[in-house]
Amino acid sequence: MEDKQKKSVTMKDVAQRAGVSVGTVSRVINQEQGIKKTTLEKVQQAIAELDYIPDVYARGMKTNRTETVALILPTIWHPFFSEFAFFVEEALSKKNYKLLLCNTDGAKKEIEYLSMLRQNKVDGIIAITYSPIEDYLASNIPFVSIDRTYQDKEIACVTSDNQTGGELAARMLLEKGCQHLAFVGSHNNTVNETKKRRQFFEETVRLTDKECLIFDLEEPFDNFLEQLEAFLEQHPQIDGIFAINDFTALEVMHILVKQGKRVPDDVQIIGYDGIRMAKEHEYLVSTIKQPLEQMAEEAVSILLSIIDHQTPSRQSVLPISYVEGKTTKNFSKTLDRKRYQ
Amino acid sequence: MEDKQKKSVTMKDVAQRAGVSVGTVSRVINQEQGIKKTTLEKVQQAIAELDYIPDVYARGMKTNRTETVALILPTIWHPFFSEFAFFVEEALSKKNYKLLLCNTDGAKKEIEYLSMLRQNKVDGIIAITYSPIEDYLASNIPFVSIDRTYQDKEIACVTSDNQTGGELAARMLLEKGCQHLAFVGSHNNTVNETKKRRQFFEETVRLTDKECLIFDLEEPFDNFLEQLEAFLEQHPQIDGIFAINDFTALEVMHILVKQGKRVPDDVQIIGYDGIRMAKEHEYLVSTIKQPLEQMAEEAVSILLSIIDHQTPSRQSVLPISYVEGKTTKNFSKTLDRKRYQ
Repeated sequence: MEDKQKKSVTMKDVAQRAGVSVGTVSRVINQEQGIKKTTLEKVQQAIAELDYIPDVYARGMKTNRTETVALILPTIWHPFFSEFAFFVEEALSKKNYKLLLCNTDGAKKEIEYLSMLRQNKVDGIIAITYSPIEDYLASNIPFVSIDRTYQDKEIACVTSDNQTGGELAARMLLEKGCQHLAFVGSHNNTVNETKKRRQFFEETVRLTDKECLIFDLEEPFDNFLEQLEAFLEQHPQIDGIFAINDFTALEVMHILVKQGKRVPDDVQIIGYDGIRMAKEHEYLVSTIKQPLEQMAEEAVSILLSIIDHQTPSRQSVLPISYVEGKTTKNFSKTLDRKRYQ
Repeated sequence: MEDKQKKSVTMKDVAQRAGVSVGTVSRVINQEQGIKKTTLEKVQQAIAELDYIPDVYARGMKTNRTETVALILPTIWHPFFSEFAFFVEEALSKKNYKLLLCNTDGAKKEIEYLSMLRQNKVDGIIAITYSPIEDYLASNIPFVSIDRTYQDKEIACVTSDNQTGGELAARMLLEKGCQHLAFVGSHNNTVNETKKRRQFFEETVRLTDKECLIFDLEEPFDNFLEQLEAFLEQHPQIDGIFAINDFTALEVMHILVKQGKRVPDDVQIIGYDGIRMAKEHEYLVSTIKQPLEQMAEEAVSILLSIIDHQTPSRQSVLPISYVEGKTTKNFSKTLDRKRYQ
């Protein structure tokens, strides 16, 4: 699904910009062997700069659909990403699509898969990525981003309701009696929905007369744990912590226990994600749970709409829920859990 | 890589057996639309019965290599499988291969991917599967099995050294002072290397004068946990347990704690696998660790050899090691750990 403006870019334009023949551009697009590395790079750069997408008809003639979707993740070896991949594969399988799995390291692989998309070697991409790939994305291509939005580009994005999640974490800690609250996390410089967790947690606490301390390192960083330990040592009054994700909540818990605090008696902790080691296992901590199955289904549904040349909504925000684990005081067992969803 | 006997089966033989025309067989192989379901099934059955593999030359003409390998797992949402998938993707990526991920449920998907292999839509398969797929496997196809061997079929298999693992678990528990040992696990009726864990644990304990109780349910079963709880209740003297895998070891631990026992003070537990929730995280229990990275590299290396028409060894057994976790008494910290590898 090209946008109309880009449709006018032809193979000839690419050849001109790269200073090579049209035949050479064709050979690069068809991934033929024996092309000089410098030539290859020149052509690839021209393709990226012009946002060239091979003609639909020509593509259709050559290969038809692959019925394959790539899933790009930082690492599959992580319960959040592996649960998401599980449900993406399930949703794709129902539509007779296959899943190509890609663990990233840096932006290299993302760009490689985006190039496969252009060459019609995959029909679409679902990606959780923090790499600088803006320049390689065109508007309305079959690409669904999780959590991250791209300025000036109409890229579909599926995310959980991070705003309500941040607010809910604050309200739960306040209702459970916390007087000195803190946010613990880290962030990078991408435009990312997950930054709302801290923002709306902080705003909600600031509406009360309670304290709201912030520990929020910018990536990349060294010694996250050492700095976190010092922060918690310096502020022994903290009795309620919202962590950016469940693994960070676990780290907070381990440091506090090492410092002689009891969880949840002295300090209550709420994470974000809803991580379990496997299906049927327990949640690791009290948490704001992302609806991973629905997020996976929504991402697949939006992606297949784009592949079918329909125009889906650009952003889909799915509802979170609070899950009571062992890191908060559970004296509200009789409360209607639904209130918090 | 067909074996010679099978090469003589032609499309005509398939057509004859299925009672259809050669053109129809060709349409099925090329996955064309609009074929009647009954016709499709007849042809697929004939292909399976005759072990028909499309001619290499014709295949090469049509599609060349896909540079794609399918990984079949019971579920990616499990730290053992997601770690394995992580390393398989990494090893494939180094060879410019892509990974198709398949979560199975029953044998349906395995057979679908084996059919993709025949149609040259994937170049090879790495599989952890317990489904009855024997009839769909031919000898020496690019298929690498993890843990499971197939009688009468030359199917490559990569496994950790389950025999030494079972022996080592027994020796560790005995050295740590256990008097009343038990094995806890379950099994299915496939020929599977993992059955050696119990076998050699039991043999090693029986060489001493110590007790060796066995709790080993045959799948499928109901109420594993209830039966395990009753078993542990009936045998309160047990002070050392080897569990078939780490998740079972965790379950054993939770039941014992519920029954008022202390782990490792009263009962020591050793699992198998070496599960971690993610890279850099801790091991869940004391365990016999499988070398997952090496197993992934070996599986990829063997698979690519078969794809390249080389003949690799049929079975590859990789060394395990003992990892001290929190479920055993660690009074032997000063021992040279290498002794146990």
